[in-house]
Amino acid sequence: MTERGTTGPQIHRTVADLRRALAAERTGGRRIALVPTMGALHEGHLSLVRKGFALADAVVVSIFVNPTQFAPHEDFDAYPRTEASDVDKLAAFGVGHVFAPSAREMYPDGFCTAVSLGGPALGLETDFRPHFFSGVAVVVAKLLLAVLPDVAVFGEKDYQQLLVIRQLVRDLNMPVEIVGAPTLRETDGLAMSSRNAYLDPQARRTAATLYATLADTAARLAADPGDLAALDDGCRRLEQAGFRVDYLALRDAATLAPLEAASDRPRRLLVAAWLGQTRLIDNIPA
Amino acid sequence: MTERGTTGPQIHRTVADLRRALAAERTGGRRIALVPTMGALHEGHLSLVRKGFALADAVVVSIFVNPTQFAPHEDFDAYPRTEASDVDKLAAFGVGHVFAPSAREMYPDGFCTAVSLGGPALGLETDFRPHFFSGVAVVVAKLLLAVLPDVAVFGEKDYQQLLVIRQLVRDLNMPVEIVGAPTLRETDGLAMSSRNAYLDPQARRTAATLYATLADTAARLAADPGDLAALDDGCRRLEQAGFRVDYLALRDAATLAPLEAASDRPRRLLVAAWLGQTRLIDNIPA
Repeated sequence: MTERGTTGPQIHRTVADLRRALAAERTGGRRIALVPTMGALHEGHLSLVRKGFALADAVVVSIFVNPTQFAPHEDFDAYPRTEASDVDKLAAFGVGHVFAPSAREMYPDGFCTAVSLGGPALGLETDFRPHFFSGVAVVVAKLLLAVLPDVAVFGEKDYQQLLVIRQLVRDLNMPVEIVGAPTLRETDGLAMSSRNAYLDPQARRTAATLYATLADTAARLAADPGDLAALDDGCRRLEQAGFRVDYLALRDAATLAPLEAASDRPRRLLVAAWLGQTRLIDNIPA
Repeated sequence: MTERGTTGPQIHRTVADLRRALAAERTGGRRIALVPTMGALHEGHLSLVRKGFALADAVVVSIFVNPTQFAPHEDFDAYPRTEASDVDKLAAFGVGHVFAPSAREMYPDGFCTAVSLGGPALGLETDFRPHFFSGVAVVVAKLLLAVLPDVAVFGEKDYQQLLVIRQLVRDLNMPVEIVGAPTLRETDGLAMSSRNAYLDPQARRTAATLYATLADTAARLAADPGDLAALDDGCRRLEQAGFRVDYLALRDAATLAPLEAASDRPRRLLVAAWLGQTRLIDNIPA
């Protein structure tokens, strides 16, 4: 089930094939990094791959559009699938192994394990996508345990997801270091995302307001940490630009807990908002 | 945090210490077996250790009375804790490593991950101890991922637990082989269990009826596979002996699903019943 082009990465479709290939990679104490993706790779993903190579000798990229983290009404069917061009991009980076299993390989008949978290999984995305982190927790656990990398790299663009995964790994004693990598942005500030491809030219122009609002709100909060009216103003600005806002929230950067008054712990400003049928998320320190 | 007597096993209190010690054990491809226990070791546990040595070069025994698999009204506080004599027994077997963490090491502040299963976890124990397998799934996941053994050995005495753990390991891609080992019995047939220590002499004599009933019921079912009245008769016999029966059930041996008529798949007869304040379980093929 392992495929290989003349120069590109090996493509593994089963956990068994993947493990066989990685056993050879591990000889001599070589370190392995995993970069989990849903494919539709853009520069943001490639920066995670670059980070993987900085931290390990070999990089495995998984490509799997995980059905269990989409609700029935969400964009699972529409989510872009571009495996051939994804593999070409990874070949150019010297990635040796792609793990691209079928849904059946990941969730065979009889599959019946659920994982759920409190803590950083509470609120924010969970208020709007209640199944999301349970789906993420299971698939990330499976990917981490299939690959058993020394380190796995996740983008800060999905900041709540990054904290949930750190917590999952810590709670279950998974022997993997989780590393977050900074969000890459287009020249107008929009965070790179596979879902940006859904935006028509006009929506794409409007989308820049998301980051601009985050940046301006964070600047106001930097000037006056207690100026929480900045959040209301940010929401209003997004709505006036044509967004439907799920949340624009200021949270403890380490735990995502609502802020206690007079705390000087690092904070994070997080946003999720819709432009038409496209849901965008972003976050920055604040 | 690692302790060691002059000849006995190393006793590790933290995952970090355990991992450091096991990294050395693994050199040269030596295989490691894990035998998870709640301590109060008896011959049944020691047979699992023996099985571990048959399957691997080094055996790690974990001793941890896991609070999360006991409901508030259950016997967590009363559960026997005999670490010193447990360690002596393991020393005599040449066990090199004991992992005996504190509850705080396993469940530090902020711990918030839950694992639950359907499939083999449905019914039987779950009908009477609804939290049980969630507690077991988390602690076994943590122990397996802390040790990362090649193989882990569990007793068939806890048959439903064994199937739940197999399913968990399969579902999450844990790189561990799960091996079941046969139940050891006292001369009158009673399955060895740490909880047998709760029984006063009279209850201990009565307890033998549990296995006798299983054996006689299985014999009737062997003579006539459709003779399900044998289950009612078995229940009645246990009640007449003084048991309060939670269940006496015949299930598919591989899935624990209720049996379909006319199936010739292997079956398992499982029982849980109370003698006074002591809950006993047992099972045999049928």
